[in-house]
Amino acid sequence: MATHDAVEVILAKRGGGELSESQIDWVIDAYTRGEVADEQMSALAMAILLNGMERHEISRWTAAMIASGERMDFSALSRPTADKHSTGGVGDKITLPLAPLVAACGVAVPQLSGRGLGHTGGTLDKLEAIPGWRAALSNDEMLAQLESVGAVICAAGDGLAPADKKLYALRDVTGTVEAIPLIASSIMSKKIAEGTGSLVLDVKVGTGAFMKDESTARELAETMVALGQDAGVHTVALMTDMSTPLGLTAGNAVEVAESVEVLAGGGPADVVELTLALAREMLAGAGRGDIDPADKLADGSAMDVWGQMIRAQGGDPDAPLPQARESHVVSAPASGVLTRLDAMAVGLAAWRLGAGRARKEDPVQAGAGVVWHARPGDPVTEGAPLLTLLTDEPERFERALASLEGGFDIGESASYAERPLLIDRVD
Amino acid sequence: MATHDAVEVILAKRGGGELSESQIDWVIDAYTRGEVADEQMSALAMAILLNGMERHEISRWTAAMIASGERMDFSALSRPTADKHSTGGVGDKITLPLAPLVAACGVAVPQLSGRGLGHTGGTLDKLEAIPGWRAALSNDEMLAQLESVGAVICAAGDGLAPADKKLYALRDVTGTVEAIPLIASSIMSKKIAEGTGSLVLDVKVGTGAFMKDESTARELAETMVALGQDAGVHTVALMTDMSTPLGLTAGNAVEVAESVEVLAGGGPADVVELTLALAREMLAGAGRGDIDPADKLADGSAMDVWGQMIRAQGGDPDAPLPQARESHVVSAPASGVLTRLDAMAVGLAAWRLGAGRARKEDPVQAGAGVVWHARPGDPVTEGAPLLTLLTDEPERFERALASLEGGFDIGESASYAERPLLIDRVD
Repeated sequence: MATHDAVEVILAKRGGGELSESQIDWVIDAYTRGEVADEQMSALAMAILLNGMERHEISRWTAAMIASGERMDFSALSRPTADKHSTGGVGDKITLPLAPLVAACGVAVPQLSGRGLGHTGGTLDKLEAIPGWRAALSNDEMLAQLESVGAVICAAGDGLAPADKKLYALRDVTGTVEAIPLIASSIMSKKIAEGTGSLVLDVKVGTGAFMKDESTARELAETMVALGQDAGVHTVALMTDMSTPLGLTAGNAVEVAESVEVLAGGGPADVVELTLALAREMLAGAGRGDIDPADKLADGSAMDVWGQMIRAQGGDPDAPLPQARESHVVSAPASGVLTRLDAMAVGLAAWRLGAGRARKEDPVQAGAGVVWHARPGDPVTEGAPLLTLLTDEPERFERALASLEGGFDIGESASYAERPLLIDRVD
Repeated sequence: MATHDAVEVILAKRGGGELSESQIDWVIDAYTRGEVADEQMSALAMAILLNGMERHEISRWTAAMIASGERMDFSALSRPTADKHSTGGVGDKITLPLAPLVAACGVAVPQLSGRGLGHTGGTLDKLEAIPGWRAALSNDEMLAQLESVGAVICAAGDGLAPADKKLYALRDVTGTVEAIPLIASSIMSKKIAEGTGSLVLDVKVGTGAFMKDESTARELAETMVALGQDAGVHTVALMTDMSTPLGLTAGNAVEVAESVEVLAGGGPADVVELTLALAREMLAGAGRGDIDPADKLADGSAMDVWGQMIRAQGGDPDAPLPQARESHVVSAPASGVLTRLDAMAVGLAAWRLGAGRARKEDPVQAGAGVVWHARPGDPVTEGAPLLTLLTDEPERFERALASLEGGFDIGESASYAERPLLIDRVD
């Protein structure tokens, strides 16, 4: 590998120029090895944020991050693979019903997930509400489970894209998170290294999402789809609404319960709609577009895979889920129609109740969260329960309630405008 | 002091906004204390470089850097004080004759200087060629010498603007040196903390200068003059040419010898011209504009102060200066007029011969340097000596000669256009 100098690379991007392939390969490798210091990488990250990167630069940056670690290989599996990534939302439990559903259709789902930080929940935190379930699997265990069950949701090992892990932690403390090239390459380096054959991205837009406006979300979606194509991974993105939280629950155990309802053929309409839309994209990407996933919800086969998947990772799918020790009901202050329920307000409330964590090392409460009893468009009656707050620590109610202030509107039926859940498709 | 968060401050500048006084005070103080990490400050520095700062932000930033350390006070002196700062050039020995000259006119000169890094020499490195001379003085020693001799050239103590010291080292390795707000505040924080009553800035422009073009140099000059005014220090800047090296020597002992020639009433015309121009500005700034410094060169009183100043710091002004062990003569390849001698080429050659250092901890050679036997505009004869290279280590000649390739032109008299040394005055 050619040798460069950190200042040379920084100056190239500072001046608005393009980084060469050799510069990108060197800077990622040298940063991973500690030869490029944090203070140099953060200056480069700020220059990238402010001056941008061209598509071919982002592709190379992504490839260099993949090359910093191991790359998984599912080519020995008897089935095609498909994966999904969501940019993070409130009440976004979709991975839970989606992975077993797609596996029930004959496509293997190697779903490497993360823990939640901030107001958006983490898939692993939710599944850990199930007694006995464990997130950590070796690569061999993961491969064996993919072959036998067809679906795995587990923690990403430290071996995948270690450069990304280091850079992500750095960006978090240096004000360099919101750079499309860095967000896109961070997500895609892990997903490509994971070795999936096809990928569906759920890019959230709205108050509760990382991307608040549609144009930024579209730019991110287009960048990630391009990166997937450049790496030979069939990639499609759905842009979906995250101004309203998904389903009727945000938290851990409460979201598992809602997911099981969906697998049982019920559940909130929006969760079912998004689960099926993503499943169809995953199946099409894996060459099984002929299968209708709705059939697999109806005939119970998705639920069967769920049970196998949970058991394979030590969990008991039939055990009662943990319940919060305390609850607090927020009643509707007026009668009418719920015209707005803000995803960020609900997400912050669930977080403050203990469903999420402020620091990486914090624990989460399995039973904590928010349940809402009406969705936007539903009629509500003054004095009837509108939201139920759940936590083990009642001193958390006050701050959770504060975050819900101004978080919903009740009005006349005529003032409610339904927002489509699926905003656009990028491929 | 109000408490802020490093990411909040970075995001404000990243977004192109202005930093509040409170944010600036906090971030400089917290950085000095180590609460704001290097990787956060480098991201902020890059955002400042790319998005700029308003005058009032730079003033506050400068004041916060001054507040990070001690501030000297010369108000007890019986004379007014004036200081000079040069942005750095090749053959720029002006401080050596200037400080005793201005002191001979009755104005005290507290000249805190630095060592050289890269192709521009350092004033302290030059003076250290004088046997016995020492750069380190306590504040009390400095004050006593200012009162008794009237001129001090010494190393800046660690107590002045420690935030700047830390930030300067960080900028050097993170590609964030070339930001006018950061350059201007770095220079001015030290000069204001030093406590001088008036200040003259010599802002160099040209190939051998930090600022290659006039517009950038002017922006730096105007920013620094404004900072001086905001801090109540009478400040004037001269913009001077640095496409040609000053005088006939670049190095350490050779520049001391040339400075002594000037103090003896001789020396190269350009060195005399710039010394007198800066002396007149310093005297005017200190309220002694009625005195003609040329008289003090002619009557030997500037030379007397030089001798006292060198002796007060342990040096012997009459001792022979060190000589390089080896020399190499570059002959003129043609006859004609020397139409160009490039400051950067000469500066690099002197540096490579051992007059300067590549790393802070490197030693320099007292005898190393370059002497040229003609200045642009002078006639030269084919085969006659044009430049003499000096070093203790003959293996250095090759790289020094390489840096001189293309560094001068010999042509017809008509093709020579004289460049004025004094380009402009900013106040």
